[in-house]
Amino acid sequence: MLKANIYVTLKNGVLDPQGEAVKKSLKILDFGQVNQVRIGKFIEVWLESRDQAAAIKELEEMSDKLLANPVIEDYRVEIVEVNQS
Amino acid sequence: MLKANIYVTLKNGVLDPQGEAVKKSLKILDFGQVNQVRIGKFIEVWLESRDQAAAIKELEEMSDKLLANPVIEDYRVEIVEVNQS
Repeated sequence: MLKANIYVTLKNGVLDPQGEAVKKSLKILDFGQVNQVRIGKFIEVWLESRDQAAAIKELEEMSDKLLANPVIEDYRVEIVEVNQS
Repeated sequence: MLKANIYVTLKNGVLDPQGEAVKKSLKILDFGQVNQVRIGKFIEVWLESRDQAAAIKELEEMSDKLLANPVIEDYRVEIVEVNQS
């Protein structure tokens, strides 16, 4: 078994209304130092595999096909754990 | 200026219907090795500050008050960049 984290973020320049709303709310809550907020997805995936190179390829394919929208989003894949079980 | 990442995840044991739906879709797309998927939030915050200790305290307060729901979610705060500008 292998665990991976996938970070999906909006590309630079793409408007983030959700992030803007959160920034405004933080200002209202008196967090005056907040300059910018961007909100993305943090996806944890467990795979029945121990081959890290193959897993990364597969996770990138998942991201391209389903987890991210390549037109407006970037993603980063990271293997964080490999269990021998 | 300082940049932080906040990772918001569902606590262990809390059902994740969105993650379950993504897992099913991945299976349909022939990613048969997928065992589990959990979906959280990846929040990037830029702060007008250079004091890392104070920033972490503030970011944890933001998470408790607004960014995460402490009843069902955990969060992790990480300073990733400090600029002298």
